[in-house]
Amino acid sequence: MKVVTAREQLLNAVQIVQRAVSVRNPMPILAGIRLEAVEDKIFLTATDLDMGIRCSFGAEVIEPGACVLPARYISELVRRLPDLPVLINAEQDSSSVTIQYGQSETSINGYPAEEFPDFPIPTSPLVCDLPIEVLRGIVRQVVFAAANNENRPVFNGVFFELVDGNLQVIATDTYRLAWRKLALENYEQALNIIIPAKTLTELIKIIEPEKTVNITVTPNQILFKTEDTWLISRLIEGQFPNYKQVIPQEYYTRVRLKTRELVEATERASLLTDDNLPIIKISLEQNILVVSVNNEAGRVYEEIPVFQEGESFQVAFNARYLNDALKAVGSEEIHLEFTGPLSPGVIKPVGDQDYLSLLLPVRLRGV
Amino acid sequence: MKVVTAREQLLNAVQIVQRAVSVRNPMPILAGIRLEAVEDKIFLTATDLDMGIRCSFGAEVIEPGACVLPARYISELVRRLPDLPVLINAEQDSSSVTIQYGQSETSINGYPAEEFPDFPIPTSPLVCDLPIEVLRGIVRQVVFAAANNENRPVFNGVFFELVDGNLQVIATDTYRLAWRKLALENYEQALNIIIPAKTLTELIKIIEPEKTVNITVTPNQILFKTEDTWLISRLIEGQFPNYKQVIPQEYYTRVRLKTRELVEATERASLLTDDNLPIIKISLEQNILVVSVNNEAGRVYEEIPVFQEGESFQVAFNARYLNDALKAVGSEEIHLEFTGPLSPGVIKPVGDQDYLSLLLPVRLRGV
Repeated sequence: MKVVTAREQLLNAVQIVQRAVSVRNPMPILAGIRLEAVEDKIFLTATDLDMGIRCSFGAEVIEPGACVLPARYISELVRRLPDLPVLINAEQDSSSVTIQYGQSETSINGYPAEEFPDFPIPTSPLVCDLPIEVLRGIVRQVVFAAANNENRPVFNGVFFELVDGNLQVIATDTYRLAWRKLALENYEQALNIIIPAKTLTELIKIIEPEKTVNITVTPNQILFKTEDTWLISRLIEGQFPNYKQVIPQEYYTRVRLKTRELVEATERASLLTDDNLPIIKISLEQNILVVSVNNEAGRVYEEIPVFQEGESFQVAFNARYLNDALKAVGSEEIHLEFTGPLSPGVIKPVGDQDYLSLLLPVRLRGV
Repeated sequence: MKVVTAREQLLNAVQIVQRAVSVRNPMPILAGIRLEAVEDKIFLTATDLDMGIRCSFGAEVIEPGACVLPARYISELVRRLPDLPVLINAEQDSSSVTIQYGQSETSINGYPAEEFPDFPIPTSPLVCDLPIEVLRGIVRQVVFAAANNENRPVFNGVFFELVDGNLQVIATDTYRLAWRKLALENYEQALNIIIPAKTLTELIKIIEPEKTVNITVTPNQILFKTEDTWLISRLIEGQFPNYKQVIPQEYYTRVRLKTRELVEATERASLLTDDNLPIIKISLEQNILVVSVNNEAGRVYEEIPVFQEGESFQVAFNARYLNDALKAVGSEEIHLEFTGPLSPGVIKPVGDQDYLSLLLPVRLRGV
């Protein structure tokens, strides 16, 4: 392989595929990035076997071929290269790949290109096209509620359920749940898949704004594709729990308030909580919501004016979970709905029926 | 103590004095910040007993007095306060201090104010006034060469030697040395002090640009003072080594080159070095300086065009030390001077006789 490329494009591609590099995998070659020169393009690929990313860009291919370089070295080197054309030269019989720039050069010992795992592109029909902004919204509003727990894989994913052109997206770690509804017109297919939360988080980092993403689904994989970037990920197997029965259909008490005021009060109150179990109390009386903490380090007492419907109440939440939910809601004002001190609290953006998140209260001793 | 202050000013003062807070000190109260309200001002003080910082600003003092609050809580709280007037209320008989803002309040348990160590302001005559930019220049160019080693305290400091209006500032960890000369007109006093490197690093972080700093020296302390900020530090006792005999007075070979080109080549070459002992080779022949590394991970070969006087040579340096020195030099072009492969290399800014740094070569096996 012998190819001349612009430093900027090479850097961009390296930084994108690097997100799939697996540093702690027992297979050493997965710490590498595969470069392949074909016709007038270079393809960069990395994978941790759960997720793979491929990226291509135009280059002057003098001799087609492939090589695999340690991601750590190639990314750091390209980042530090001068803004000159870069010649990458991998001799067929040598594991050393030479990168030339101006009068200088670096040779890096690579891995055998033929040992790099395949990157099979699914050939199933396209499921849908989505603007990256729609996916970004889903990730911002839903992914925070997913778990990160090796024992129960389904909770590490985000459930996508498409029926009659209605897409519902749900994540839950069993302590909290986030739900988003989306109308996808012209999509008649039914779909029930669990996408790893990490896949979605990485996806929105590598796709540029305003791009449209083609989505293809097979029984156990999903492919997200734009013009020059492919992200392929395994799907999570298993049955997502019946979330519908957990979402309360009515409420005893509802308050309307400014999101920012509760975020800030929660953040101040969190200061004096235990880092491992940051519990804050919330009580409501006469249109005043009080956020409070009381322990050895001191006390916090925060008053927030609200619009109250229904009876007064008291409840305790994990402050970090409440904060995550408030930051995800994405609207200036919210409704908080309660059905009792041990039932989940529901957070809804005012004027938007298509999103909610819910949060289990913490049971306090003596309550 | 009862006082009303603006959140912004309180935050600024907390962030300044916090730099002297000692988190891991056996005296728990040193994790605190002392607040004292006197006449129409608040004074904030923190100290780790080696260094103390005091900061004052105008406030509405309703009742004079003092309190000590855990730095961690007060700084995080003030950072998160709304932009409203803040009432700080410390009752005489309670260890709890209440901070009120709008309809909300936080009480933090503090330490007994009378147990906080004194902050004695030296009354010796002023030694000199220096613009903070001069001090910043000294710190940027010299401090990097100081050591961080508990066994040999003098090397953890920066030596200031003032004779006949000439100030020389030196730091060395015995592997490298940086030296700066400065004409201080109208200063007839002689001065021989070693200031902890940490003191100088913190000083330039807390003093705003364009301020003039008053410097007062006692036999074992130094005070840096502006209008409303005091930094007091112990001096390091002991004899600073005779640095003059280490600085080569002549050279066999001298090269002139662009600083940036050597910085970038060194950074790329460092990629393939061992993190614990990042050794790079430098060789000179026919107006080309070659920076190279050769080990299991690969090879780097960097050519830099230079202007050469004297014979060709080869030398090896710690890449990290070389990089520190090159970044401190602060000029577009440098002279590198050599007297032999085991003698220190000297780095000088082109056209500036008042600064240099030197760097001991690394002895390579078989050389």
